[in-house]
Amino acid sequence: MRLRVTYHLACSSRLAADKARDIAFEQTVELPEGAVPPDVAARVAGRVESVESLGRGRSRAVISFDPAVVCGDLPQLLNLLFGNISFKPGILIADLEWPDELLAALRGPRLGITGLRELTGVRGRALLCTALKPLGLSAAGLAERAYGFARAGIDIIKDDHSLSDQAAAPFRERVERCCEAVARANGETGGNARYFPNVTSSPPEMLERAGLARRAGCGGVVVNALPAGLGAVGAVAATGLAVMSHPALAGAFFQRDHGIAPPVLLGDLFRVAGSDAVIYPNVGGRFTFSDATCAAINARLRGPLGTVSPSFPVPAGGIDAGRVPYWIERYGADTIFLIGGSLYAQPELTRAAERLVAAVRRHFHG
Amino acid sequence: MRLRVTYHLACSSRLAADKARDIAFEQTVELPEGAVPPDVAARVAGRVESVESLGRGRSRAVISFDPAVVCGDLPQLLNLLFGNISFKPGILIADLEWPDELLAALRGPRLGITGLRELTGVRGRALLCTALKPLGLSAAGLAERAYGFARAGIDIIKDDHSLSDQAAAPFRERVERCCEAVARANGETGGNARYFPNVTSSPPEMLERAGLARRAGCGGVVVNALPAGLGAVGAVAATGLAVMSHPALAGAFFQRDHGIAPPVLLGDLFRVAGSDAVIYPNVGGRFTFSDATCAAINARLRGPLGTVSPSFPVPAGGIDAGRVPYWIERYGADTIFLIGGSLYAQPELTRAAERLVAAVRRHFHG
Repeated sequence: MRLRVTYHLACSSRLAADKARDIAFEQTVELPEGAVPPDVAARVAGRVESVESLGRGRSRAVISFDPAVVCGDLPQLLNLLFGNISFKPGILIADLEWPDELLAALRGPRLGITGLRELTGVRGRALLCTALKPLGLSAAGLAERAYGFARAGIDIIKDDHSLSDQAAAPFRERVERCCEAVARANGETGGNARYFPNVTSSPPEMLERAGLARRAGCGGVVVNALPAGLGAVGAVAATGLAVMSHPALAGAFFQRDHGIAPPVLLGDLFRVAGSDAVIYPNVGGRFTFSDATCAAINARLRGPLGTVSPSFPVPAGGIDAGRVPYWIERYGADTIFLIGGSLYAQPELTRAAERLVAAVRRHFHG
Repeated sequence: MRLRVTYHLACSSRLAADKARDIAFEQTVELPEGAVPPDVAARVAGRVESVESLGRGRSRAVISFDPAVVCGDLPQLLNLLFGNISFKPGILIADLEWPDELLAALRGPRLGITGLRELTGVRGRALLCTALKPLGLSAAGLAERAYGFARAGIDIIKDDHSLSDQAAAPFRERVERCCEAVARANGETGGNARYFPNVTSSPPEMLERAGLARRAGCGGVVVNALPAGLGAVGAVAATGLAVMSHPALAGAFFQRDHGIAPPVLLGDLFRVAGSDAVIYPNVGGRFTFSDATCAAINARLRGPLGTVSPSFPVPAGGIDAGRVPYWIERYGADTIFLIGGSLYAQPELTRAAERLVAAVRRHFHG
């Protein structure tokens, strides 16, 4: 089977077939058809499977590619899908159909929903996550907050995705202090909260930070998938750590007629890259996703996908703590709710977290 | 000094100041102003330096950031500039002003224009580069082309950016054969052509490929900077190899009112990341850059930038071989012209390359 990519083309339907053929060659052999030996073109160039008008100056083209061109390599996958044609106007990747061979090569999440439930000991309910912030606080200050969140029963306490190795809270000190704080809280409550530090950096530094997090017993980490490169997600996943991917920069791809549709990028691509959980901006928050987009991302992360394990959706970006029961009704138990700002807006952070935890447990256990 | 970022905001001038303040907080502390301890906000949040209307529903806001927030880390730099706000509409990064401290931490190119001239032995003229293609050809077939190009006097023979580790031409075999072919041609001509393989992959595989290329004597490599992550450019540059960065995916950032302007992304950011040469789609080719954009990219790559060495602009994307003298007049000697398709469109590849080389030498030496 071939990798089938559905492109939406913003052009007159008269030109759509030519545009599709141009994409098929540009993204593979990077030569016009006449300059490619026919046997090479037959094996390697994309194949235009169908072109149909969607009306109003838009067409849908399905182009299939030999999955062997990807080499099981995530940067090359991104390049094949959208590398050079990112410079051409009016091209949107609307859908992907994956051959099993490629899915097997890319692997996807190592823990997935099941493994992340084992890591956190949470069964039968949605998970709660919050972020340590703000940037600029000391490692001791962040650890104190981590302790309070763990005491309150938050399942995953993650670094804000801008926490790197700043002098106020250097990576190593932050990981040591926050792990200790969360372990101490767990010892007192009998709970199983986890601290996920942000390990995003350049290679090879990033894998060193992941190693440090693993040895400190974190169990999982945050990766800014696009700034780091999707391949970095896979490299961290291969260490056995759970990966929660953050969507920083992804918005550049979400133009109406150009880019990669959110369910494809944050759903399919982040998942096959190895994300056990994917953060995205929930509808009604401080960003701009629609209801339908959020539902589609959830479906793409959790649905059947060859041998690839399901990933947790992590709606975020301004969810009101008081509305979490509503979102649980909407999104179901296989969701991690990331509540940050709405807790920090309340006068007592730990008390706010306790109320949130109580509301969720009440929802699931009556 | 602080990192000063000029954002163009597509919104009514009445709202621009609020939008700028929102960016300053969103990109750092990720909390509204009221939820951040004032001393932390003063140290770490962005500072709105100025907001002015540009007319027609657009405003210009300059926001400055403490460079220490970047930690000398390229993924964190991208995240600070555009991570979360990529999800908000109508925000374009139009300009950057760099503090010396940050430039020193990021380092930039290790060879730069001077070092790449030493590596290739080319003084006093523009360089010529071509690409080995198409994907799907055997390693032996690509090496044969490399031999012909080196014999003809092309300075840099690079992998097409889609060549990864496909079975037709596996990375190791390709590097060995192409290096041998280019060395053989150099032995025959007394020339100094260089082969730059594409090492783009996931970490840690990418650094292994770079090591293999270095040991084979390549001297330089191609990196698909955004698919790999900008940090990978820096990591490869740190090995001492010359880095030619390819702009795959970059087009996603080039919307009219949203993203990062091409001279900032391909000029400043690719350069400070460590690119000794940056490929971009030249005006009049098969992509959509304007004259002014190309000139601005050239200026950003070559101009003074603290302690950061200048990089070579590499205009590409459909330059006609016959028009190279024209482009040399326009762009000057400190340019690498990447001519691919226009050579492949001619019946005899090596002869076509010879004609191109002769035209360039005639131009410079009369």
